[in-house]
Amino acid sequence: MSFKPFNPPSRTLMGPGPSDVHPQVLQALGKPTVGHLDPSFIAMMDEVKALLQYAFQTQNPFTIAVSAPGSAGMETCFVNLVEPGEKVIVCRNGVFGERMRQNVERLGGEAVVVDDAWGTPVSVDKVAAALEAHPDAKFLAFVHAETSTGALSDAKALCALARKHDCLSIVDAVTSLGGVELRVDEWGIDAIYSGSQKCLSCVPGIAPVSFSPRAVAKLEARQTPVPSWFLDQTLVMGYWSGTGKRSYHHTAPVNSLYALHEALRLLHEEGLENAWARHANMHQKLKTGLESLGLSFVVDEAHRLPQLNAVYIPQGVDDAEVRGQLLNRFNLEIGAGLGDLAGKAWRIGLMGHAAREENVTLCLGALEEVLS
Amino acid sequence: MSFKPFNPPSRTLMGPGPSDVHPQVLQALGKPTVGHLDPSFIAMMDEVKALLQYAFQTQNPFTIAVSAPGSAGMETCFVNLVEPGEKVIVCRNGVFGERMRQNVERLGGEAVVVDDAWGTPVSVDKVAAALEAHPDAKFLAFVHAETSTGALSDAKALCALARKHDCLSIVDAVTSLGGVELRVDEWGIDAIYSGSQKCLSCVPGIAPVSFSPRAVAKLEARQTPVPSWFLDQTLVMGYWSGTGKRSYHHTAPVNSLYALHEALRLLHEEGLENAWARHANMHQKLKTGLESLGLSFVVDEAHRLPQLNAVYIPQGVDDAEVRGQLLNRFNLEIGAGLGDLAGKAWRIGLMGHAAREENVTLCLGALEEVLS
Repeated sequence: MSFKPFNPPSRTLMGPGPSDVHPQVLQALGKPTVGHLDPSFIAMMDEVKALLQYAFQTQNPFTIAVSAPGSAGMETCFVNLVEPGEKVIVCRNGVFGERMRQNVERLGGEAVVVDDAWGTPVSVDKVAAALEAHPDAKFLAFVHAETSTGALSDAKALCALARKHDCLSIVDAVTSLGGVELRVDEWGIDAIYSGSQKCLSCVPGIAPVSFSPRAVAKLEARQTPVPSWFLDQTLVMGYWSGTGKRSYHHTAPVNSLYALHEALRLLHEEGLENAWARHANMHQKLKTGLESLGLSFVVDEAHRLPQLNAVYIPQGVDDAEVRGQLLNRFNLEIGAGLGDLAGKAWRIGLMGHAAREENVTLCLGALEEVLS
Repeated sequence: MSFKPFNPPSRTLMGPGPSDVHPQVLQALGKPTVGHLDPSFIAMMDEVKALLQYAFQTQNPFTIAVSAPGSAGMETCFVNLVEPGEKVIVCRNGVFGERMRQNVERLGGEAVVVDDAWGTPVSVDKVAAALEAHPDAKFLAFVHAETSTGALSDAKALCALARKHDCLSIVDAVTSLGGVELRVDEWGIDAIYSGSQKCLSCVPGIAPVSFSPRAVAKLEARQTPVPSWFLDQTLVMGYWSGTGKRSYHHTAPVNSLYALHEALRLLHEEGLENAWARHANMHQKLKTGLESLGLSFVVDEAHRLPQLNAVYIPQGVDDAEVRGQLLNRFNLEIGAGLGDLAGKAWRIGLMGHAAREENVTLCLGALEEVLS
């Protein structure tokens, strides 16, 4: 057998992620590898932490990047915080709420599921009722921005409810971080995770995570060891924190962290509010164009994510054929439907560096050609 | 606060990993990101699988790269295969055998530890006795190449013993893969994991894993769900295998897999036996030089890893001062001692692309200057 170097095509990435990676991020990624305990690298990690605190709008000292994708970020929150037998109110209005439920149950926790229809936000009223009905619940877990549907839930109201009932909140911000308003400290979020490859426009494989002091106290008061050695944050913190010597836990993904540093630096340079506004503006332009093509949105305007636009596939149109043409003729990736929406919707991402005028114009023009 | 782009220093990496990354691997890493379900990427993943089968010398269909560092590769093997209450013979002759024990116990398994002194290989006789004494053991777990000491164990003999006693073998090949002889099928290894950042000379963050059909059968016969959703290989295989449609599990670390593809391609181009010989040759040259500097090895010659050279720090020499000078004056990283050897030994890596004439000469020259 013979193997040639891989030369990927140049795609425009407007699916549910990975999104277009900023050229400076790719450049940072390819810089020479240094040791994971190199003083220069440790100093860079301190900046990554400060930049993550900015992106999350938090002062939490426990703010790090997990050395694995967003799904491992989710697992980091559940595996460290939820002990066997503990009750978790899990909100399910798409694929990722269901994944949360699976995390809880695999850990021996008890999941109380609050269901809402796909494409709608988590119902604050239902959650209030569930918290009333389950005074022994220890956690409220929900997805801020459901990547499978494009629905935005009211994280501020949900976290306030969690506090009122003395529950810790666990929030999925994989698709929301950097794309819509998110204020960890102001909203009282206790454990939050995200991914690198959505609105941060970084390469996939890294998961920002932050724990409030309340969450850290829960972790430190565990009665049982964290079942995962790799994700045990009591061990990981020996590497990510402290002003003195860092202790080895696992080998950090050095180059991916270069990339995350640059992606976060670009977000800081733009300003968080400006980034949110850019996503909103590009969404308006895309929305107008999609509607004039006759496409209709899965999610009501009031709860619609600017960065993830799920639209119904028109009747009689071949899903795979359209996506194939966009990819092959225009090097443009949009996302297929997932779960209940498979074959019924497309998901058009405007995430991070992908939320640009030229992308919107390309996407609308290409869709018009392919659908006509 | 203001943040500048990070420009890492150009180091020569001769510690216990990450090792020097081949320039072509860095180049591959920085190529444009495509979607994790892009047909071009799926085709590349098939090549990664074939190249990993070559590197591991196996026909196992279940041969993949876990989207996280080597420690997660370890956890992948234990979390998928070991069920609560099952007995595992764990060989401990360094840091990583101890980590295996922690994995077993966190999963509710029962670890029977076979201890050998740090710097010595796993005793085949002790393992034989442990297997006799524990006929109910289901697994034998050991480290092929102990990164904390530089000792090489006899994987072939140990796996033969495991088979004889109807145990599945779980083998840590983090530092051995690509550096010394390793034949998964011929030796009858059942579950094996490695890391990207040692003798493959790839960036850190990816863990090659292979399961034999016997290990897959054990996984499929589980009585309890895999406790980790992220590492559940019954789910991951829907993404990594099959000739038809790949199903989404988590977003693969696209660019890191570009890098792994290139690193494995370079290994295939060189030829596995040639790579093993190169490591052995460079080790001979390094050994001669180190000994003429008066340094002595932690491990006896018969069990010494060519790619990881642990040498005692001479009396009266300041460990941190020497490593600091090597780093600051020569941009050369060597490794500190770990665990029992902290402060007592240095670990000099000759892994993958770092196993080159110029590296050996630089390391010997710099050590001579600093120690004189």
